[in-house]
Amino acid sequence: MNALEHLIDTYCDGWSAPTPEERERLIRATLADDATYCDPRADDLPVPDLLAHISGVQAKRPGAKVVRTSAVDVHHGFARFHWHVVLPDGTTLPEGLDVVELSPDGKRIQHVLGFFGPLQRRSSSTSN
Amino acid sequence: MNALEHLIDTYCDGWSAPTPEERERLIRATLADDATYCDPRADDLPVPDLLAHISGVQAKRPGAKVVRTSAVDVHHGFARFHWHVVLPDGTTLPEGLDVVELSPDGKRIQHVLGFFGPLQRRSSSTSN
Repeated sequence: MNALEHLIDTYCDGWSAPTPEERERLIRATLADDATYCDPRADDLPVPDLLAHISGVQAKRPGAKVVRTSAVDVHHGFARFHWHVVLPDGTTLPEGLDVVELSPDGKRIQHVLGFFGPLQRRSSSTSN
Repeated sequence: MNALEHLIDTYCDGWSAPTPEERERLIRATLADDATYCDPRADDLPVPDLLAHISGVQAKRPGAKVVRTSAVDVHHGFARFHWHVVLPDGTTLPEGLDVVELSPDGKRIQHVLGFFGPLQRRSSSTSN
């Protein structure tokens, strides 16, 4: 596993850890101090707000883990990867996509942009 | 087709038009004046450099068209969609992903981040 994969997986562990203290340790180790997080249900959260958001998600789905499901594809400081949520009974939720901007030194994440679920196929109707 | 799909498809047409004049008309109609473009072979190009880049791609693959292949998934001013290149003989190249940031009014594209090909599955080896 290379350093970038390790960074991404540690970040995913930050969503998955059972206690707020462990989540904060992992998220702060992987996100830049001024990083922001955006997904369909979260609008550009700074790190403290992201930690509260993750606690809310964990409260709704106790024991859920976020696991990377793809390789990490990176160029020019931007990386993409797929992930899914694994529930304690082993059920998985539909695969999402994260696109992350790395910090200038490449060692931490500066911005996360998440999308939920697979991209739907284009509608066959192309009429205007 | 909604306004965002129309914007994205017109932008793709800007990659596909046969003449530099038509490409410039379409790209300038869809990208903000200070927009930038980044993909694995292009590092944050402003619009004039993007137009030169597209001309280079068209010179290598005359008549190639870029066609959106997925729905457009959008939240908080960021959209993702899949696309592929269709060669004049109908051959298609592997599907890529674009993630675009929209301008504040949502009517033009502020930034394009492109990735080539499908995301590879995660390696089965998870040892460190």
